[in-house]
Amino acid sequence: MALRAAVRNKSALSALLSQLSPCNSHGRVCVTQRRNNSTSPKIKVDFDHSAGVAVMRLQSPPVNSMSLDFLTEFCVNLEKLEMDKSCRGLIITSSQPKVFSAGLDIMEMYGKSPESCEEFYRAVQEMWLKLYSSNMITIAAINGTCPAGGCLMSLTCDYRIMADNPRYSIGLNETQLGIVAPFWFKDTMVNTVGHRTTEMALELGLLYNSSEALKIGLVDKLVPEDQVLTTATQTMTKWLAIPDHARQITKSMMRKPTIDKLTSNREADIQNFISFITKDSIQKSLRVYVEMLKKRKG
Amino acid sequence: MALRAAVRNKSALSALLSQLSPCNSHGRVCVTQRRNNSTSPKIKVDFDHSAGVAVMRLQSPPVNSMSLDFLTEFCVNLEKLEMDKSCRGLIITSSQPKVFSAGLDIMEMYGKSPESCEEFYRAVQEMWLKLYSSNMITIAAINGTCPAGGCLMSLTCDYRIMADNPRYSIGLNETQLGIVAPFWFKDTMVNTVGHRTTEMALELGLLYNSSEALKIGLVDKLVPEDQVLTTATQTMTKWLAIPDHARQITKSMMRKPTIDKLTSNREADIQNFISFITKDSIQKSLRVYVEMLKKRKG
Amino acid sequence: MALRAAVRNKSALSALLSQLSPCNSHGRVCVTQRRNNSTSPKIKVDFDHSAGVAVMRLQSPPVNSMSLDFLTEFCVNLEKLEMDKSCRGLIITSSQPKVFSAGLDIMEMYGKSPESCEEFYRAVQEMWLKLYSSNMITIAAINGTCPAGGCLMSLTCDYRIMADNPRYSIGLNETQLGIVAPFWFKDTMVNTVGHRTTEMALELGLLYNSSEALKIGLVDKLVPEDQVLTTATQTMTKWLAIPDHARQITKSMMRKPTIDKLTSNREADIQNFISFITKDSIQKSLRVYVEMLKKRKG
Repeated sequence: MALRAAVRNKSALSALLSQLSPCNSHGRVCVTQRRNNSTSPKIKVDFDHSAGVAVMRLQSPPVNSMSLDFLTEFCVNLEKLEMDKSCRGLIITSSQPKVFSAGLDIMEMYGKSPESCEEFYRAVQEMWLKLYSSNMITIAAINGTCPAGGCLMSLTCDYRIMADNPRYSIGLNETQLGIVAPFWFKDTMVNTVGHRTTEMALELGLLYNSSEALKIGLVDKLVPEDQVLTTATQTMTKWLAIPDHARQITKSMMRKPTIDKLTSNREADIQNFISFITKDSIQKSLRVYVEMLKKRKG
Repeated sequence: MALRAAVRNKSALSALLSQLSPCNSHGRVCVTQRRNNSTSPKIKVDFDHSAGVAVMRLQSPPVNSMSLDFLTEFCVNLEKLEMDKSCRGLIITSSQPKVFSAGLDIMEMYGKSPESCEEFYRAVQEMWLKLYSSNMITIAAINGTCPAGGCLMSLTCDYRIMADNPRYSIGLNETQLGIVAPFWFKDTMVNTVGHRTTEMALELGLLYNSSEALKIGLVDKLVPEDQVLTTATQTMTKWLAIPDHARQITKSMMRKPTIDKLTSNREADIQNFISFITKDSIQKSLRVYVEMLKKRKG
Repeated sequence: MALRAAVRNKSALSALLSQLSPCNSHGRVCVTQRRNNSTSPKIKVDFDHSAGVAVMRLQSPPVNSMSLDFLTEFCVNLEKLEMDKSCRGLIITSSQPKVFSAGLDIMEMYGKSPESCEEFYRAVQEMWLKLYSSNMITIAAINGTCPAGGCLMSLTCDYRIMADNPRYSIGLNETQLGIVAPFWFKDTMVNTVGHRTTEMALELGLLYNSSEALKIGLVDKLVPEDQVLTTATQTMTKWLAIPDHARQITKSMMRKPTIDKLTSNREADIQNFISFITKDSIQKSLRVYVEMLKKRKG
């Protein structure tokens, strides 16, 4: 059924396709066992000390899938910047053409041991916890398609600027793939676009093109693709004019209840994820996708 | 004062008028003591097994007032469909011309014993609890005016399609009648249109025409009156494309906190209703209405 | 930094300027030690017994700064009207040209003892608690600029009518001044315009002109400046048509959870305010402002 849904829905399918990272020219889907062995960084950080602003570029070909390696690297970099009191602002953008991030790497959830699933999911939680509570001003410069986990990362920032391109879509489309957005994905979206829009978006796994996303408030601004980063920099200047301590206390006041919900339920949330994702029916559903995608990419 | 309010406000008055079910051609208001004796069903269910979709037609003349009989029948039918795993979607519509449902039957609250009021109110809770937590995809095909309890039933569905007719109105107008929408009516509306719109709508007992209702998000789509049901069927097809298990878990995640609020306060909510509705001042207020309506209909 | 922010931002600066009440023609900023000695009332109340509606005029020159005296007088008057069962509606407006209220009086927070700060802050809480839970219909007739505490007072009413003048602004701009809106300011704004709009507005200390304020729902209606009060009176008539008891119970249902949050955390909230406002860094920040404003006004 999930398969039929995806076949009917081009957006979901292409989003899914982009979640797989072929390791070689034959398009074989690789299981990411190269952790700790990877040499090329998946995240590139440029810190402009004079401005107090860092730009983080996602550069994990082909589609910035959020593998455990990717998330670990992201968190390490984020923590470094957070500790550096001279860094007041962070812009997150993509170095890959046409995609911001394809979201969580399905291969981290398919055919894996419960222990591996736990390690991966804990890293997803960590990314969200660190970014949603960041003391820095965080701006997502969304220069490409942005489904699922990519959308979550964007929603977790303070401000979202998206390329005005009808072919780029954004949304939490997990349901389309037969999986479910965790409650803190949901909370983050409710905090951004409200309860009703979130309810329908998550039940249907909706992906919005850039104009639709602006209309419902999923992003804050659209600009031509080649101006996404410069606009982010200009917007950052306005935010930098606000006294840090007042802005930070205010941000914490707005977000702490949502963060506390996860921190006080973190282990239960992990167990819930493991028991769901390791179900035969879910694994079977993921398998159908993976096989289909191998063929299409092969 | 409630009387003056209603006289000034045509919408409220006509909504109220439609809440009374005359039993005979002389327009006498009847007290519904025919429970368990009724022969003609108030709800007609057509289940299309091949599509997995049931259509429930409200057919309690003249205006689908939600009496205890009506609600009991509704819940029995809903439960049957819920138990039938082959039924994945439910469309609710009206067989009566110009009205979806006039809402709760005032005669169940006027001049009744506390025990009767309790039995009735418990059935209203039951309808909401079952429908708001339904595993089925639920679509309201609103082909007529839809005040008070009719609006609640619609809001409790997953999607609302309304006839594009400025003479049809929808809203929780209880305050206009001197009574108060329970907290879970309020919660359901807040979940749909947000806190501020709900606050003003409930304090003023506002009824919205179809265009206004679309604008504030009280309904999701307007179509010409003769296309309400076909559009509901088409919309259902889109929802059916989503894997059931993922959609159901997502729906539960969105709605469970609201449902838990009632289930954990159900008895207190009943006692609160009884002590309110059996007050002399409220009964007097209802009496003025009933007398006035007898005259108008007589 | 706060200084630079304010200098860059004309709105914030002018809002700040207006928060200082010079005591004499030489523009010297006065410390309000005249409490209990003040002779001219800061609040003028006209109660139309036949209509059941009172109009409260803020008349504390030059800009209706909310000093301890002002707030005490406001609460005493509000309580009197609340006790008078014949008073069903309250309209709040300003007698000062071009300004509704400049908000909390900075001089009550600068160079004061913790005891004085506590007394002042408790009065701010009291104003909000009394007004947000009022049984009367409360309408803000916003006939001038309305930053910070002025905006809070407006948001605390049931309905907001603002003069359609692009030079008048409204918003909770505390962050621009290096201070932080308390959680119940935030809750009141979230209840009015939603979570996301509030998050960005409070983090950036945004002031909206009248058109923008209408667009995001911060006010409910714009009318020409000379029609603000008459429109408020007309709007009141509509609200008066609703039975009081039903409207009051509904209002309480909508607002009680927000009010309970403060009443159950009131002392902690006071201590939190005192420890924040008496910090050297915050006092220094306030001092820079006060000195600058003395010069500009001198």
